[in-house]
Amino acid sequence: MTILIVPLILLCEKSQSQDSENEHPNLILTEEGVQEMRASLGKIPLFDQSVSEVREQVDAEIESGIEVPIPKDLAGGYTHEQHKANFFTMQKAGVLFQITGEEKYAIYIRDMLLEYAKMYPTLDKHPAERSYARGKLFWQCLNDANWLVYTAQAYDCIYDWLDEETVAKLNSELFRPFADYISIENPKFFNRLHNHSTWGNAGVGMIGLVMNDEELVDRALYAFDVESESGLIDNDGGSLNLQGYKEGGFLAQIDHSFSPDGYYTEGPYYQRYAMYPFLIFAQGLANKKPELKILEYRDGLLIKSVYALINQTNAQGEFFPINDSQKGMSLASRELVNAVSMAYYYGGNDPGLLSIIKEQGRVPLNDSGLAAAKGIAEGKAQPYPYKSIELSDGAAGDEGAIGIIRADNLTLVMKYAKHGMGHGHFDRLGFLLYDGYGEVIQDYGSARWVNIEHKDGGGYLNENHSWAKETIAHNTLVVDKDSHFDHNVKEADKTAATPYYFLPGEKVQIVSAKETNAYPNVEMHRTMAVVEIEELENPLIIDLFSVQALEGTRYDLPLYYLGDIMSSNQEFETNNILQPMGEHDGYQHLWQEAQTKTNGEVFQFTWFNHKNFFTMNSVARQGDEVLLTRIGANDPHFNLRRDPGLILRRTGGNTLFASLYEMHGQYSYSDEIPINSFTSIANLEIIHEAKDYAVIQFQLKSGEKYRFAFSLMEKGENSKHNINVEGWSLEWTGIYDFTKLK
Amino acid sequence: MTILIVPLILLCEKSQSQDSENEHPNLILTEEGVQEMRASLGKIPLFDQSVSEVREQVDAEIESGIEVPIPKDLAGGYTHEQHKANFFTMQKAGVLFQITGEEKYAIYIRDMLLEYAKMYPTLDKHPAERSYARGKLFWQCLNDANWLVYTAQAYDCIYDWLDEETVAKLNSELFRPFADYISIENPKFFNRLHNHSTWGNAGVGMIGLVMNDEELVDRALYAFDVESESGLIDNDGGSLNLQGYKEGGFLAQIDHSFSPDGYYTEGPYYQRYAMYPFLIFAQGLANKKPELKILEYRDGLLIKSVYALINQTNAQGEFFPINDSQKGMSLASRELVNAVSMAYYYGGNDPGLLSIIKEQGRVPLNDSGLAAAKGIAEGKAQPYPYKSIELSDGAAGDEGAIGIIRADNLTLVMKYAKHGMGHGHFDRLGFLLYDGYGEVIQDYGSARWVNIEHKDGGGYLNENHSWAKETIAHNTLVVDKDSHFDHNVKEADKTAATPYYFLPGEKVQIVSAKETNAYPNVEMHRTMAVVEIEELENPLIIDLFSVQALEGTRYDLPLYYLGDIMSSNQEFETNNILQPMGEHDGYQHLWQEAQTKTNGEVFQFTWFNHKNFFTMNSVARQGDEVLLTRIGANDPHFNLRRDPGLILRRTGGNTLFASLYEMHGQYSYSDEIPINSFTSIANLEIIHEAKDYAVIQFQLKSGEKYRFAFSLMEKGENSKHNINVEGWSLEWTGIYDFTKLK
Repeated sequence: MTILIVPLILLCEKSQSQDSENEHPNLILTEEGVQEMRASLGKIPLFDQSVSEVREQVDAEIESGIEVPIPKDLAGGYTHEQHKANFFTMQKAGVLFQITGEEKYAIYIRDMLLEYAKMYPTLDKHPAERSYARGKLFWQCLNDANWLVYTAQAYDCIYDWLDEETVAKLNSELFRPFADYISIENPKFFNRLHNHSTWGNAGVGMIGLVMNDEELVDRALYAFDVESESGLIDNDGGSLNLQGYKEGGFLAQIDHSFSPDGYYTEGPYYQRYAMYPFLIFAQGLANKKPELKILEYRDGLLIKSVYALINQTNAQGEFFPINDSQKGMSLASRELVNAVSMAYYYGGNDPGLLSIIKEQGRVPLNDSGLAAAKGIAEGKAQPYPYKSIELSDGAAGDEGAIGIIRADNLTLVMKYAKHGMGHGHFDRLGFLLYDGYGEVIQDYGSARWVNIEHKDGGGYLNENHSWAKETIAHNTLVVDKDSHFDHNVKEADKTAATPYYFLPGEKVQIVSAKETNAYPNVEMHRTMAVVEIEELENPLIIDLFSVQALEGTRYDLPLYYLGDIMSSNQEFETNNILQPMGEHDGYQHLWQEAQTKTNGEVFQFTWFNHKNFFTMNSVARQGDEVLLTRIGANDPHFNLRRDPGLILRRTGGNTLFASLYEMHGQYSYSDEIPINSFTSIANLEIIHEAKDYAVIQFQLKSGEKYRFAFSLMEKGENSKHNINVEGWSLEWTGIYDFTKLK
Repeated sequence: MTILIVPLILLCEKSQSQDSENEHPNLILTEEGVQEMRASLGKIPLFDQSVSEVREQVDAEIESGIEVPIPKDLAGGYTHEQHKANFFTMQKAGVLFQITGEEKYAIYIRDMLLEYAKMYPTLDKHPAERSYARGKLFWQCLNDANWLVYTAQAYDCIYDWLDEETVAKLNSELFRPFADYISIENPKFFNRLHNHSTWGNAGVGMIGLVMNDEELVDRALYAFDVESESGLIDNDGGSLNLQGYKEGGFLAQIDHSFSPDGYYTEGPYYQRYAMYPFLIFAQGLANKKPELKILEYRDGLLIKSVYALINQTNAQGEFFPINDSQKGMSLASRELVNAVSMAYYYGGNDPGLLSIIKEQGRVPLNDSGLAAAKGIAEGKAQPYPYKSIELSDGAAGDEGAIGIIRADNLTLVMKYAKHGMGHGHFDRLGFLLYDGYGEVIQDYGSARWVNIEHKDGGGYLNENHSWAKETIAHNTLVVDKDSHFDHNVKEADKTAATPYYFLPGEKVQIVSAKETNAYPNVEMHRTMAVVEIEELENPLIIDLFSVQALEGTRYDLPLYYLGDIMSSNQEFETNNILQPMGEHDGYQHLWQEAQTKTNGEVFQFTWFNHKNFFTMNSVARQGDEVLLTRIGANDPHFNLRRDPGLILRRTGGNTLFASLYEMHGQYSYSDEIPINSFTSIANLEIIHEAKDYAVIQFQLKSGEKYRFAFSLMEKGENSKHNINVEGWSLEWTGIYDFTKLK
């Protein structure tokens, strides 16, 4: 193969000779940016490293030759993965062409695009019939849109280098028909408020910007008129009723997808996925249609949403696995590599972002990446200041929220947001807990192996519906063995939980929320407080789950602790024959390994995880049961992890579940010296429980007593509270009182 | 508290004024060494850091005051952990006194020793009656010996600083009676070839060196006469028959505990534990009795044994969990921190050791540690050259071995050594496999939480005997559901497996061994080859397990893969009701989750672990069964991990189990792009199987065919082999032939 090195000066001259409107690149890369990148080569370590990594990948692909197979396979299969690899490689090759001036990259893209132009007009819908909106290159339009978002960038990079005839051919035979197919011909896909549509909007809009095709850009921004159609449903069970013009388009996506805090109702896993088209199209619009002021839209919402994502990660940078979400997805993903650098560049050069970018170890090859790499090279990076924060949900920010409390190495997350549409889980008032090493009390995440062909083609597995979405799979209350909203997504989507109180701070932090719609005639109100106690090594977590319901209600309150059981103060009876615990609502996937009827004492349960010990201390009533469970029954393809769980079971009416979670001590396998392996809690009791107040008191083994009182109905800062308890009177002002007793 | 700073010059002068024989410190620290350490302070980063870490720990202990409680608790309990903390702190305080000259450290040791001197004469045996040799400070003499090994070092550091009266008092009221108790009064503990006794020998010998008590030193080196007594058994089930003088003492321990390759029959976990007394006493002897040439003893065996330990670790520095062994114990342990630096200092300044010491992140505060830290500061560290190696077992090196094959990131370990006495597992011809991230095919290790009071006081759990030691818990053959040697330790100890062939190398590496004693009338011969194949990303592992036995024998061949099941080419039937798979020999702890009767095709089973895919390809006969298992039945205290397993079950006579283990592809949760997730093996067949030869042939999906032929009876380098297979003749020279077919 002959490689032509075009002198840089030539490229620049050629571009400069054209009129400004048509100068390329001007989508993600810009003339000025490219010149600065070229001038910086060899001077900014992280940028240089990213260039050589990308160069190595692309050179290997060029070496192995162009392959544009007739579409056939589902995700994970050959044709799917090949087309996917193609668009990733083309995008990178385009950038390399601009930065290095080496023409082999432009030739590679041109030749591949001509192959696509030859094949595309011959294609009918993809042969796999699984999608509500079948693509042509891929089984679903979503992936076709992915292709367009990346390929538009590659095309922009070689647009001016191509001869006019080729441009005309590609515009009319490949790109315009491609854009029309995933929009006009697939309104169910394109005209909807959903992350799928965001990709569609971005792809169509970006290719429109490259081709200067205003019609496509308008369509992308504002969608198009379509007749209403209802009762439709997508592959994930989400509703896709078409309601015409106003419900779609890129601007509407920004209006409706995010809360004012930048939270995305499907949760951070999907937000991460959606961020790429949101940000990359926005970047193109900022460059080419600055008059739109897209990055300032809704008070700078797109940049804010990057911060929302960062705030939804644990110490390893992994996203909280709220709703459908593959665990382990993290700030290291390609989408976030682009997003964080962009937030740095367009969002005011926040030095806290540089430490995250440093950890990512690579930057996008554009203005943002260059700026971030420069900032790092100049030693500007600062640790990102993670803090306690409540992220509202809903377009207006008034439909529930996610509460995140951080204290030392502990991170507590409580979900009282909207359902999350087709990807939502029935987990109102559920929580999860991390220490500095990872999960301690887990959310299962989704039952899926994304893109892994072994696992049903990489899509959602049956167990995602039958287990992962069900209430019993979460750390929240199950009433009468039935999931919230009787697992009806439509019903769940109608309401959100109600934030009651959120207090970030130092010594006492509180998150509290109510849910009254999940079960008819059942009012649930959970309050979690993270308190500093001078005698304890770590902050202590108080969990007060108050329920108002009719007598005879059966409650199951699960706790998906992770780690190895150390001991309990109650004697468990273990089962040598295991049977599924039920037939539906997720119980069919649980085996009951052991059970105990509590004797009315405090229930204590200690486990070890990572390098620390954890103890759950819980008020147990006479007649309460504790069951130890294992996930894995009715799992014919071994799709589920065999994780342990614990269920506190109670039958009654109005009640309060009161627990303390204590992280204590340490142990390592290489020094074998356990420190502080037993809980410091000697006793825990409920002083008062009713619809109006929850008051608990606990004593440490060292003797000190503490009392936490919380007002469940009246939260005025100056409100006075007074409870009579067995002859004495407890008084306080404000919503809560946390007191060390004499 | 008043702290007196004694000018360094004074301390030196005082020491120099005494006659050379009695100068202290001279056990682990030396006059010259101390002066060099003082001169180096502030100059050698790793040494300085280690000093400040130790100082911080000791200062905190001094701050919290001296506590010498009346002995009462088992391991994990307060008095046990306090006395343990005391000896660790005293040893460190002694070193700090020498290095810094700050008298507070000497005062702390003196005052604590005087507390011990006050209490010790009043003590009867420890109240806990669980040990075959109860200590006084601890429940077993072993821990008392630990105390003495560390405390002797502290005592040496302040010996010359103490007034004569105090020395006389401590010698006669504390140390001499202490040494006599754990030796003369406990011959079952002291006069034995066992790691426990090594600690006893070292403790008695080291205090003897400090006190210039030749009688104690002799006793430590050569043991003492004792009447024979038989039929005794220790807490771990090991035999402790007393056979008098020649069976004990430190030199005899060196003679008998190690093979000429430095392998220790109990395995690396216990070797690590035993290394500390071996090396620390040897260091004292080298300093004080150079005429003994202890470090050159048996061809430099003690240093060689440190290398043997390093060679028995995975990429994370964790020891292979052979026999009783808590997983995660590693080169980071305090014993190895001492051992590796010592091997560097006394073993010829091997720069490969420095990279390990760097990784340990700390050095011992003595001559060795200083030398190592200096070497690192001077940039001398080199990567440690891990390579394939066979470590012989038995004092003469003729009782079996451990074979370790390393190829790229893969490490394969096969055990065909001696049983390993009381801590041995019934696992002849078992193997384990690591990739660069950790375990892929695991050995369970021991069922124990060392020192964790929650778990039966930190000792061996019942499940260690009923599960962890049994054959079914290992990756080796179980015949007729019975463990090797009918789980009789005494019988197992009588013989070793027979190494047959070991070939380290490049393209083809082989380990092969026979076992004919584990089952009456059953001959087992396992051969594992690790071969490089140009079409594959990683080395491929060939496993040929040949058995000669009577027809009707039932074989169970387990594989404890770690990770998530991806898929199999055979349809499994899963069980929703789980029952224990048997009543004894470990089967009572297994649940059978699924089963399939193979249809005679190659059985393929793919799992995902860490970041890679793995596939087992195995020749399946009509009628073979594959069972998928889960550990955890009959486990009333949740002492066992719920790990998965696979059992290949066959009924027959002479047979060959032939499998390929392939590591392929990759996947990460943050990029979600699976690469090469399916096995490259299309087919695998047995060409010949008999007592004399095993020949297999396999084909890749890309078409290439390979054949591996191995001679099971004749291994001469020039031996000619010839097999007739269905009309054609296969010929080769030498023990094996690995050929790519046209």
